[in-house]
Order: sequence, then structure tokens, then C-alpha cells
Amino acid sequence: MTPKPKTAKPKSGVRCKPRFRITRGEDIALGPGKIDLLEAIERNGSISSAARDIGLSYKRAWDMVATMNACFKSPLVVSEKGGSGGGGARLTELGHKVAGLYRDMETKAQQAVQADWQVIKKQIKG
Amino acid sequence: MTPKPKTAKPKSGVRCKPRFRITRGEDIALGPGKIDLLEAIERNGSISSAARDIGLSYKRAWDMVATMNACFKSPLVVSEKGGSGGGGARLTELGHKVAGLYRDMETKAQQAVQADWQVIKKQIKG
Repeated sequence: MTPKPKTAKPKSGVRCKPRFRITRGEDIALGPGKIDLLEAIERNGSISSAARDIGLSYKRAWDMVATMNACFKSPLVVSEKGGSGGGGARLTELGHKVAGLYRDMETKAQQAVQADWQVIKKQIKG
Repeated sequence: MTPKPKTAKPKSGVRCKPRFRITRGEDIALGPGKIDLLEAIERNGSISSAARDIGLSYKRAWDMVATMNACFKSPLVVSEKGGSGGGGARLTELGHKVAGLYRDMETKAQQAVQADWQVIKKQIKG
């Protein structure tokens, strides 16, 4: 039995999920996938374990971290020495702060649209 | 010179865009692409012209309309007779209402997250 990635969500029912895409020029500095990755790095203590945890290839996870770090004035993730795939990684203070702010934005957005969303939801088949 | 699709946005600068994905089970009942399509149908008066306008294949646009109409209790788009690709299409009263509510949700979400977003933005390279 293959365990499901921790971000898998139940797929039944009618749902409305806010997502924020933060772009810098052509780059996506932050989006839902990158925030999931930051949180997985925090839980797992390395980029490779984080990637496995949420079902990304190591290369993809690494590229996402590189993009985030390049877009911000200081890095969100730092890796510790230890050879290819062997070293740990952790969020910086800025990484923690940004991930928290992004989740706050989702919560505030969800609250702000509740009334309109309920009107739409009533028109969707149950 | 090929005109750009009307939804093309400038790609410079640092931006934050709220997007709502409204799901019914496995189906995406509404999302940014489907709302763009509804508005293009309203502007163009047919699914085929709308598809061309925003750079979708006719089949893709038709599938998106079919999914939306299947998710809602009554259709968002009705097509008028006229043979394959030849007939017009228009938004129903519900289609207008839902598209407007979705845009209102985007505006309200953007306002609700302004303070947090400005904190993040300050940390992104200009």
C-alpha cells in the first residue's frame, strides 16, 4: 500500500479554495505548491524528504526552492552541507514568516468571499 | 502581426493575483479560465469566437462550457441552433450572475489580503 502524500485532500463535495500566485516578472515567486513545499521542508528537515512527502521529484523541489530563493531579497530555505541529497535544509526566519503570511492571506480571503461564495454554492448541484 | 489574446497580462513587476477554484467532486466547476471564457462568450456571442479570442481550441472551450453547465443546477451558457460551430451562444441570467460574483470575490479577496501582501512584497526583489 502506497501512503498518500500528506497534501491529498478529500475530493467529494462542493468546495471553494483561494489560491494566490505571486509573480516576479515571468517567475512564480510563491504559489500553493511552493508553500506546501516550504511546510514540508519544515516538517522533514531536508529537501529530498520534503519532495517525497508531497510527491514531487527531487529536481522539481530543488528548482522550486531555487526560484523562491532567487525572487526574495534573502533566502527562504537554507541547506546544510552533507553531499548530494544527504544534507539537511531548513526555513529561514523569512521563510517561516512568508509561509505564515501566505496562509493568513488564504484564511482572510476565504472569510472575505464567504457571502458571495454561499450565493454561488446554492446554484451548484450537491 | 498576430493580435494577442485579450486576457494577456503584462509580465513585468511583482504581482499577487487571487484565484478561486470551485470544485464539485473531481470537476472544476469554476476557475479563472472558465470565467475568462464566460466573459469572452458574452463579448463574442459564440463559443467558437470566444475560444479564438482567448486562445483556446474550440473543443477545449466546448468541454469547459459542458463542465460548467453540468455542475450547476441550471446552465450558465446556452447555445442557439445553427449547426456545428455556426450557432451563437450567450450567457443565461445565472451565467451573468455567477461571473459577476466571481469577479467580486477576486476584488474582495485582493482587498482583504492587502496588508499581508505588502509585507511579503517588500521582501521580493524589485
